[in-house]
Amino acid sequence: MSQVSRTELTPLSFLTRSEAVWGEQVAVSEGDRLWTYKEHAARVRRLAGALRGELDVGPGDRVALLLPNYAAALELHYAVPWVGAILVPMNTRLGPAEYGYMLEHSGAKVVFCAAELASRLPADAGGPLRVVTVDGSRECEYEQLVAGGEEREPVGLVDEATPISINYTSGTTGAPKGVLATHRGSYLQALAMLSEADLRGGSSYLWTLPMFHCNGWTFTWAVTAAGAAHVCLAKVDADEIWRTLESEAVPVSHLCGAPTVVQMIVEAAAGRRCEQEVRMLVGGAPPSPSLLERAAGLNVRLTHAYGLTETHGPVAICAWKPGWDDRPASERARLEARQGVNNVVSDGLRVIDGDLRDVPADGETMGEVVVRGNTVMQGYYRDEAATEQAFRGGWFHSGDLAVMHEDGYLELRDRLKDIVVTGGENVASIEVEQALMAHPAVSEVAVIGTPDVKWGELVTACVVLRPGRLANPQDLELFARRHLAGFKLPRRIEVLDSLPKTGTGKVQKFVLRERLSGGGAGG
Amino acid sequence: MSQVSRTELTPLSFLTRSEAVWGEQVAVSEGDRLWTYKEHAARVRRLAGALRGELDVGPGDRVALLLPNYAAALELHYAVPWVGAILVPMNTRLGPAEYGYMLEHSGAKVVFCAAELASRLPADAGGPLRVVTVDGSRECEYEQLVAGGEEREPVGLVDEATPISINYTSGTTGAPKGVLATHRGSYLQALAMLSEADLRGGSSYLWTLPMFHCNGWTFTWAVTAAGAAHVCLAKVDADEIWRTLESEAVPVSHLCGAPTVVQMIVEAAAGRRCEQEVRMLVGGAPPSPSLLERAAGLNVRLTHAYGLTETHGPVAICAWKPGWDDRPASERARLEARQGVNNVVSDGLRVIDGDLRDVPADGETMGEVVVRGNTVMQGYYRDEAATEQAFRGGWFHSGDLAVMHEDGYLELRDRLKDIVVTGGENVASIEVEQALMAHPAVSEVAVIGTPDVKWGELVTACVVLRPGRLANPQDLELFARRHLAGFKLPRRIEVLDSLPKTGTGKVQKFVLRERLSGGGAGG
Repeated sequence: MSQVSRTELTPLSFLTRSEAVWGEQVAVSEGDRLWTYKEHAARVRRLAGALRGELDVGPGDRVALLLPNYAAALELHYAVPWVGAILVPMNTRLGPAEYGYMLEHSGAKVVFCAAELASRLPADAGGPLRVVTVDGSRECEYEQLVAGGEEREPVGLVDEATPISINYTSGTTGAPKGVLATHRGSYLQALAMLSEADLRGGSSYLWTLPMFHCNGWTFTWAVTAAGAAHVCLAKVDADEIWRTLESEAVPVSHLCGAPTVVQMIVEAAAGRRCEQEVRMLVGGAPPSPSLLERAAGLNVRLTHAYGLTETHGPVAICAWKPGWDDRPASERARLEARQGVNNVVSDGLRVIDGDLRDVPADGETMGEVVVRGNTVMQGYYRDEAATEQAFRGGWFHSGDLAVMHEDGYLELRDRLKDIVVTGGENVASIEVEQALMAHPAVSEVAVIGTPDVKWGELVTACVVLRPGRLANPQDLELFARRHLAGFKLPRRIEVLDSLPKTGTGKVQKFVLRERLSGGGAGG
Repeated sequence: MSQVSRTELTPLSFLTRSEAVWGEQVAVSEGDRLWTYKEHAARVRRLAGALRGELDVGPGDRVALLLPNYAAALELHYAVPWVGAILVPMNTRLGPAEYGYMLEHSGAKVVFCAAELASRLPADAGGPLRVVTVDGSRECEYEQLVAGGEEREPVGLVDEATPISINYTSGTTGAPKGVLATHRGSYLQALAMLSEADLRGGSSYLWTLPMFHCNGWTFTWAVTAAGAAHVCLAKVDADEIWRTLESEAVPVSHLCGAPTVVQMIVEAAAGRRCEQEVRMLVGGAPPSPSLLERAAGLNVRLTHAYGLTETHGPVAICAWKPGWDDRPASERARLEARQGVNNVVSDGLRVIDGDLRDVPADGETMGEVVVRGNTVMQGYYRDEAATEQAFRGGWFHSGDLAVMHEDGYLELRDRLKDIVVTGGENVASIEVEQALMAHPAVSEVAVIGTPDVKWGELVTACVVLRPGRLANPQDLELFARRHLAGFKLPRRIEVLDSLPKTGTGKVQKFVLRERLSGGGAGG
């Protein structure tokens, strides 16, 4: 096809357009600094010049990021692919071993590292790897690079299926896997986010969600596509968030994050309320009914989203239906706490049984969530076996268990590997966890299966109590009986001081299983 | 790339998704009939079955439409590509000669024709061509086809660059050209329209813009992508429009059309006002400042858009800028009457000189509008020479003349071939026309160049007066002097009873040129 009517899809085109269309509008703010789209694009071009020149980064090279949500991280989301190279954004909460693995596995040539995190790089990270430090000041090594770079135009993209980013998952088991995101997939997902989140010129997006979580669910590019402002925030802090929500210049209109961020906003409200409606995509866990209601009271409208690094972030959106407004608050909250339906560019989202058949849409039968379409990763970097395994049967297997409701909305139940099979029955650990969480003395729960001669597995609850509160296993089991069918009751309850967790705060159930697998007594 | 993460882009996927997500919501209404997305999709599948079965239409076949905005036209926009065939929507205001040409040139196998328009098909349209009549009733041939069809799933699309529609332009000169729209281009343009027009689930779109105008600017697909309702309207009638705007069930929230449609709504308002804000994309001509203001008074927010059949409709949008609200109404209207900036998926929109260089962004220097990107047509069907000519230099040449403003917004001045070159100076006919249109006695004006020995061309105005009003050429010239520089003044003014027009109401300047080219006297 002629080059007149065929251009390769890339999210970089959004910056080129927004520079032309929204040139004088605010593109990025960080602390007391502010850049218009013209200034922002000029910085990206100079940074690209420095990457190509001083750092000798070219097409196909990998460039790692170990950065909080600095403006620098956003700029690198453009400058790195600008020269044809591939981003490797790393989670800031990990340690030397994980960083060493990612840098080695990706073969990164350069790492842009926050000064405060430099000590966490592996000791042997020098050598061929170039480290550029960023500290948010105007004199840091990064700023000097930008200042010294010659403005550079983007390299022509030959194929939109080219990788733009390798996003390492921090799985709860095994080595991190490198998820390949392409220019095409990122472009389409960004357009979906633009429309699902209702971003537009004049919007202002607050960076609470880390950009290292699959490129900030592609909002690194979607916000720019809308010509909206990126408000960078290095640290998620309730006072800082409220300051941006109440900013007189450009009050924040959009953000994304986990329910814990909503919780933080709600708890720090202190009688404040947003003047204009704020839209927030919430993912990672379902927002509770009370959270949905309290957020609405602050004029913050939550939309529940669900996705994985392998799907560029939100593949499912709990799309609001006309008519829900008329339902009782509790029913509405229950509807809105579901993970929902596939987004507008996703090709399919199903809940299937072991034979790749859809489970009945009865809200009860569990199956695995599988996904297909242009926003699914290209594969795991340098891991064909894992890619084949994840793509078996022509669908990406999420490893998440869900039910499908009658109205076509899915609702997560558990991780596939976290299901407990006891006496031939499947028990969703999440359901048991939710029942125990309702107990006033309980702070945290993780439910696992432990080996048992009679039952196969025993439903086992590991509980952490709130400081100063007491409860014994019998109390807890009695409490759980109010909410759970008999076969789902935790037959074994262990009260622990804390739960083992990954750098991102996910409970490492495999550690609990190992620790407790010797001591299962018959029920 | 794996089929898990690569699916061909096609707007048909929007229907599949909306059936799953918005199944119980209204998809289409026509008169007193109403279909949910589930019912609508089922009709499309049955229609596809009938096309493949009874009508023997398969991949690559062409299927013509000679239909007003019936629900049938919308259904065919899905069912025809559903079986791999190509749409040929024809303008309903043409005659046997034009239809004969289009049917012959496209090689259509079937034509779906409104009963009231059947007499306008060429007499020899029988033979190999199958005619299916549609009359909006539940018993017509079309409805029998749908009723008898077996539900059919879409054929797998092998390549997203496959044509989905051949849209014939009704040029003011020469034979119509068949503009090739692809699945990929239509998909991306539909996503752009979805976001620019702010469509969402629960929106209700009124079909005033004909679907035969480049597939209704892709709103045939964009409205479905949003899960919004299509309100079909066979005839554009002010009372009908107001009835839908005030509908208690689903009041219309969105529409598209020419300024004449806005005018019609404004004039028939009779004290009425829309309860919720209505969004309208206006194209074909700039909305006048007074029209923008009067529409706003009715709670109808106009957005000016510009495009051609060759660009799938709106490639330019007069994107609203934060801050415009604070400007005086007249200045704001002037800003909003410009054609604007390229839409979010378009790769580029420029105003260039003869050497393909951008004209200065000074709001004065005229150049030609050129466009590039995925929403530009694939080419003219069976016309390589015209395609090459239009694509010269790697850009699609619109033939429209514009200036570029300092803020990057373009503003049309004229058609390239309508410019008058007099005494070595370029005069935009539109500027002279606007000056004369301000005269209270003038109803219509067309300005052309007529040959002149001394000046090369003479600025010549063809004027139609309002009924009962009088004005002689001297009066008119004197009036024009208030607004125009001396060299732009019409040196020759002809008062005519009417202007020659095409079936779509465009003035045929070439007819005027022929008629008046003999009589040019020296100025």
